[in-house]
Amino acid sequence: MNPGTSEMHFVAALERVPAMHGYLCLFEGVCSGAADGYARVSGNPAATLLHLGPGLANGLANFHNARKARSPLVSIVGEHATPHLKVDAPLTSDVAAFARTVSDAVRTVLSADDVGPAVSETVAAAWGPPGQVAHVIVPADYSWSETSITGPVAVRRERALPCDDAVDRARSALRESGTAILLGGTAVNARALEAAGRTGDRVMTARNVAKIAWGRGRFPAPQVPYFPEFALPFLADVRRLILVEAEAPVSFFAYPDTPGYMAPDGCEMIVLARRDEDGTGALEALASGPPRALETASPPGLPQDGPLTLDSLGLSLAALLPEDSLVADEMVSSALKILTHLNQAAPHEFMPVTGGAIGQGLPVALGAAVAAPGRKVVALEADGSGMYTLQALWTMARHNLDVTIVIFANRRYRILDIEMKRTGANAFGPIANQMTDIGTPPLDWVALSHGCGVAAARAATVRQFTDHFADAMKQHGPRLIEAVLS
Amino acid sequence: MNPGTSEMHFVAALERVPAMHGYLCLFEGVCSGAADGYARVSGNPAATLLHLGPGLANGLANFHNARKARSPLVSIVGEHATPHLKVDAPLTSDVAAFARTVSDAVRTVLSADDVGPAVSETVAAAWGPPGQVAHVIVPADYSWSETSITGPVAVRRERALPCDDAVDRARSALRESGTAILLGGTAVNARALEAAGRTGDRVMTARNVAKIAWGRGRFPAPQVPYFPEFALPFLADVRRLILVEAEAPVSFFAYPDTPGYMAPDGCEMIVLARRDEDGTGALEALASGPPRALETASPPGLPQDGPLTLDSLGLSLAALLPEDSLVADEMVSSALKILTHLNQAAPHEFMPVTGGAIGQGLPVALGAAVAAPGRKVVALEADGSGMYTLQALWTMARHNLDVTIVIFANRRYRILDIEMKRTGANAFGPIANQMTDIGTPPLDWVALSHGCGVAAARAATVRQFTDHFADAMKQHGPRLIEAVLS
Repeated sequence: MNPGTSEMHFVAALERVPAMHGYLCLFEGVCSGAADGYARVSGNPAATLLHLGPGLANGLANFHNARKARSPLVSIVGEHATPHLKVDAPLTSDVAAFARTVSDAVRTVLSADDVGPAVSETVAAAWGPPGQVAHVIVPADYSWSETSITGPVAVRRERALPCDDAVDRARSALRESGTAILLGGTAVNARALEAAGRTGDRVMTARNVAKIAWGRGRFPAPQVPYFPEFALPFLADVRRLILVEAEAPVSFFAYPDTPGYMAPDGCEMIVLARRDEDGTGALEALASGPPRALETASPPGLPQDGPLTLDSLGLSLAALLPEDSLVADEMVSSALKILTHLNQAAPHEFMPVTGGAIGQGLPVALGAAVAAPGRKVVALEADGSGMYTLQALWTMARHNLDVTIVIFANRRYRILDIEMKRTGANAFGPIANQMTDIGTPPLDWVALSHGCGVAAARAATVRQFTDHFADAMKQHGPRLIEAVLS
Repeated sequence: MNPGTSEMHFVAALERVPAMHGYLCLFEGVCSGAADGYARVSGNPAATLLHLGPGLANGLANFHNARKARSPLVSIVGEHATPHLKVDAPLTSDVAAFARTVSDAVRTVLSADDVGPAVSETVAAAWGPPGQVAHVIVPADYSWSETSITGPVAVRRERALPCDDAVDRARSALRESGTAILLGGTAVNARALEAAGRTGDRVMTARNVAKIAWGRGRFPAPQVPYFPEFALPFLADVRRLILVEAEAPVSFFAYPDTPGYMAPDGCEMIVLARRDEDGTGALEALASGPPRALETASPPGLPQDGPLTLDSLGLSLAALLPEDSLVADEMVSSALKILTHLNQAAPHEFMPVTGGAIGQGLPVALGAAVAAPGRKVVALEADGSGMYTLQALWTMARHNLDVTIVIFANRRYRILDIEMKRTGANAFGPIANQMTDIGTPPLDWVALSHGCGVAAARAATVRQFTDHFADAMKQHGPRLIEAVLS
């Protein structure tokens, strides 16, 4: 929460409802991202409490990511008292218009007696399935007026299995050559991967999922590549694609002379499970074969000392990451190499950026740590992206949350260096080059972390990184390691 | 700017248009606030360059403030290439819906040939008068396609004087008792204040103005008080209010049993100049008396050493603030006392928070320093508010901008402690109390500043503060002082 004057009655009420835990965040984008992280890990909605249109505005980017993750999320937004709206005070704005940019579920409370019913509807809307960002806008006078009406307890609707026809169509398709299975949504967990492995020879996973099972000992289901020049050949021989809580794969960005859809023209899309259905159950219904014997790779060893590169850093992470940990990924240009290494780590889950809005990683790690106090959370964060919502560090410190943050300090908006070449724009000259250079002056992440109350250290060699990261894995509480990449 | 893939052609073009200066900011709210500060000081629009809906979302809170300041501002927002919109990529959203939350001037480019005309229209719309936030949404394919069409050069429309009738009506009203003049908009500059002083006995200024003349040697025109319990008696005997680029005064927030409009029922509102008219010229047309002899107060002396309180800090600032400096004010609960002291400082201008959206102060100071390289900029910033857009420090360091930042570290959301009592919510218990406590753990602003490359020091006594601030006034370049309040 990051409340203001219009939300003071809500805050005061925390005293009377101790089961409601308030986590103060020093910027609203931390609230919305943390609620997303909480939902991804627990499957239940967290609530955010934000202040009027501008407070909501600051949360929108991570609400956008939550929307694309299909995370259930209850967004409570205070509004001026209704008689005050006509005076056009400085903070007056169209709160519902802000809310609708990231959701179709926007409910404005109409009276004090309507607060309870409106909140119940909002919780139900958030649950879905699939989950969604559901807003409830609460005018201050309805907060401070008496009412004895409470809403009904919202009942969670469970995901249903798809109809038998859908399973039969998928089964028929699997008998043909050129058929692949694309897993998305919630159907990228360990059970779904195991069932998919018994079902088809060619299984792949979507990129924009809330949380995916990762690490060694899983059935290999590669992600559809990010860049079209890799995604297009990856999918070139697919003639039928069975979609499990997934959509047809698309390019993240458009480029001149490049298609938007990545599967070949004429590729048949066969929906086994929609986004609101139980894709994991559907895969288990479809699966017929015996469990597959998987290669039991041994844990990778620690890398030799040397300069800190993405490869050496990835090896170190893969060797040290604890089993059942939760990885919040906002590595951007560093992601591909590191995730390849992490596929050799102990079984864990990682949470990708779903909507492409920057500033998700640290808040999602914060919310994940609140949801799963017994699991180690590791935030793998690009230095450029980390700056958008670095205020998350303070809330981690305040609640001694068990999050280890690794900052990938390449001191560039490296992804834009790559994209500049790809979009066909002219090569950067020295002026344009400054617009992707975030190393002048260099950010000092150790100082930034100390400023927020989180212990921190810098690593410039593999040995230093390994020592700091191994220490962090043995301890409880927030730690930041600035990995200065060579 | 904080560009992304869809804006790469714009960035590349900086190489060919060296008169266009790009300032990279590490968070979009810094861009929008800096453009607002630039406009407030120069009167001309700066452009922001943001990336798709979520990038725009992060800029909205300070666009809201710019809107309420009537700042001219050109917001350029990249969009996916038009053929890509149908594939619903992760970053796809309704960009225009985000834009419309803070502006009615939203123009989407329709073809490559339309880029020039659309930008010209947008610049003209931004200028007004009054100024406004004008958005132009540019799909990537229209950026990367050839065109030979340029738009017409936008011509600035100057503010017109109000009609003679309006001046006559105001003149008649001034002959009656109980008439006061309320200055707002751009009519709070030194010329306007001087003319108002020759015109009427009772002159007051609106709070939500972009930039106001301040310091000793001005005609005393007190601001309408912030809280209703002070604003209501302040205006109780006003029977006619002459509005000069101002609206009828309203309460910032609503409270139980408190009216929204602050002037008494039946008070007549007489518009001398609308928001789009030349209020300063109108006051000069209205003014009849000779120049008033003003008290020539001598500069205040430095305070004795002792604990750092708002009073001793205010005295120190008032003694040391250089003439013609620009003060960005986001002191929130500390503002009243400090501004009272600053009214004894050398003549300067200060820039209040106009729209109530938090996170304006540091970005506005950044933009002001870009607009006025010869003037000292002083950002007076509450510790809570400063955290929303602290990334502004990095851009100040990068361009060695002459900004001195004073952080008022009371380690509370103090304004909410005050508002909690005022809204009639129950007194805070220990749980609710944590939601306004930002001192657990304490933020270390010296470390945060160093992290962004800005030299910094901490002051816990008046002597320490005076020494640091006097040093900063003698030097050029960014400096931060964390003033730990007793």
